[in-house]
Amino acid sequence: MYNWIMDYSKLALEKHKELKGKITIQPRDVVDSKEKLSTYYSPGVGAVSSYTAEHPEETRDYTWLNNNVAVISDGSAVLGLGNIGPYGALPVMEGKAMLFKTFADIDAVPIVLNVHTADEIVSTVKAMAPSFGGINLEDIAAPLCFEVEERLKAELPIPVMHDDQHGTAIVTLAGLINATKITGRHLKDCKIVLVGAGAAGVAIAKLIHLYAGSNIVAVDSKGIITPSRQDLNPEKQTLAQFNQQQQDGTLADAVRDADIFLGVSQPGLLTGEMIKTMRKDPIIFAMANPTPEIMPDDAKAAGAAVVATGRSDFPNQVNNSLAFPGVFRGALDHDVKAITDQHKIAAAEAIAALVTAPTVDKIIPGPFDEGVVEAVANVIR
Amino acid sequence: MYNWIMDYSKLALEKHKELKGKITIQPRDVVDSKEKLSTYYSPGVGAVSSYTAEHPEETRDYTWLNNNVAVISDGSAVLGLGNIGPYGALPVMEGKAMLFKTFADIDAVPIVLNVHTADEIVSTVKAMAPSFGGINLEDIAAPLCFEVEERLKAELPIPVMHDDQHGTAIVTLAGLINATKITGRHLKDCKIVLVGAGAAGVAIAKLIHLYAGSNIVAVDSKGIITPSRQDLNPEKQTLAQFNQQQQDGTLADAVRDADIFLGVSQPGLLTGEMIKTMRKDPIIFAMANPTPEIMPDDAKAAGAAVVATGRSDFPNQVNNSLAFPGVFRGALDHDVKAITDQHKIAAAEAIAALVTAPTVDKIIPGPFDEGVVEAVANVIR
Repeated sequence: MYNWIMDYSKLALEKHKELKGKITIQPRDVVDSKEKLSTYYSPGVGAVSSYTAEHPEETRDYTWLNNNVAVISDGSAVLGLGNIGPYGALPVMEGKAMLFKTFADIDAVPIVLNVHTADEIVSTVKAMAPSFGGINLEDIAAPLCFEVEERLKAELPIPVMHDDQHGTAIVTLAGLINATKITGRHLKDCKIVLVGAGAAGVAIAKLIHLYAGSNIVAVDSKGIITPSRQDLNPEKQTLAQFNQQQQDGTLADAVRDADIFLGVSQPGLLTGEMIKTMRKDPIIFAMANPTPEIMPDDAKAAGAAVVATGRSDFPNQVNNSLAFPGVFRGALDHDVKAITDQHKIAAAEAIAALVTAPTVDKIIPGPFDEGVVEAVANVIR
Repeated sequence: MYNWIMDYSKLALEKHKELKGKITIQPRDVVDSKEKLSTYYSPGVGAVSSYTAEHPEETRDYTWLNNNVAVISDGSAVLGLGNIGPYGALPVMEGKAMLFKTFADIDAVPIVLNVHTADEIVSTVKAMAPSFGGINLEDIAAPLCFEVEERLKAELPIPVMHDDQHGTAIVTLAGLINATKITGRHLKDCKIVLVGAGAAGVAIAKLIHLYAGSNIVAVDSKGIITPSRQDLNPEKQTLAQFNQQQQDGTLADAVRDADIFLGVSQPGLLTGEMIKTMRKDPIIFAMANPTPEIMPDDAKAAGAAVVATGRSDFPNQVNNSLAFPGVFRGALDHDVKAITDQHKIAAAEAIAALVTAPTVDKIIPGPFDEGVVEAVANVIR
């Protein structure tokens, strides 16, 4: 079952070494005459610079600010690889830039940082922010990511989104909307177990809470998160408030009688035996990457009605690329200064609505399905 | 005589608004299948990230680091427009990125900063430096630019060059090599008047001093710079050392009996009357932009043998685009970690040598002449 990953590892190393860079810059006009040099550069550009200096809010009409975002990481939580630093992060950020262009025609610039405190990251991003129309934060470890994103959102006049949090939350909610529909549930009445209280887990829980007010029992490496625990950071304290019965105990305790399992944690945490203790026709989102909390076949054998993972080789891939391209496309096109909770819910509903007749094997669109970016962008206004 | 500029102002505003961005990002492969998604992004990219994290020095073989530079400005000295800030600077930096690609196939990313102290600029650039294979500093005011460049050169393992200083110095020296040749001079024996002691002036003087040890009389807004003046910053103190006779006085005093006038200052500073006091067949580089210290026709009428300006509508344009593309092309291709004085001299000689039979109207190549980038890149090793 690991061959899938191993095969891609070898292929990826070969292809990356062959390409020597997954993105490149292209001029949007050919500069082949002194006249064009004098128009796009000195002396002509001086008139443009004088104008944008006087009218900074119009800079987007004269530069690529209307279509670019920075994809910024400090390399502290890269994929499932942990804190591997900026050079480890760069191939992922270039890949993300590739996806931004492929899916949404957005010019994304990978920026990797060799600073790692909230103050340093915030001051660096703020200092370079006039260069970009939006900021996609990526692969920054929790809980640092929460403070960094909150401060940047408060202090910058351009949209800022930590995709590991909100991209994942949007697509998860989209999947849940359709998964509950086909299993005859209302999300607000569901008991949801959430395993993993990092960036993605916290954002997923917050978004579901806001959307449906469900009972969410979050679990971290020490067990169920309850208000009585003394070791909770502020984000986990929030999660504890969503645990409506103040249930405590282990993951197995949490899963019992639950309708929905959401995993953004570690491979193999969920067993078929646990699934058998859940309510009938349970919904399993085993989103640990690249190896899920339980493999889909095993989940189905234990009675799961709907299974989603983070992987492209199984049905129902919970893939951020359904969300972030459209979110930033909409923000850039509609000059949206901040991505709000209402935007995220509208994006989730828009993604869910694209699957007109959901089935257990198709609760969300595939990454190459038509119309996803447009549908999401349309609600970011 | 101002129509040239005015015409380009109008055209530039129109073209910039039409293009809405002079550069764009392109993926270097089409991502049109789940297999490619899994190769360039998760899960395949994980193997690449693990590798580059372990072998940071090889990141350039797997990412665009081998071909990209940042074009960074705080907007404190944009063209001749002064301190107009990051939004004013962005159109120029995008234009520079366009030139980097056009002339040297380098992927340049415009970064404009809204911080303006040396400490802030240095810490911001250092924080993002792992994202780039080189740093082109641009349009940062003197004397701040000297400290910023020196500290970044000392602290970063990638090439850093403030182009306003060194690009201008390289091309000026290239022009002087051929201008002295055709007027029968040796540069080391020349008296050179340099007007303007900002970024370009200081770098030009230092490079000529190193190359030929000429007598250089530098002039600022207060007159000739001599060691006895009490108002000199460290860079001007250095210039004072090049004033071999410790001559003092006004610009008119400096120009008398000089062989060469180099202007990087203000329009109209040099008069025909002053040129008539220079040695026979004087060399005039009136490089103030966009309006020179004296117009070429006036200089020639007063006896100038060779006239160069910064403008493309006159012969002998001293244009940075002859230097910076090749300097960074060579540094990236040959994995050069720092641009040294020897590199700059070699680049100037290479540019001068491209004009096999220099004449008064052709002492340096034009920006679109063949072979310039290759010739410069070849000596940056």
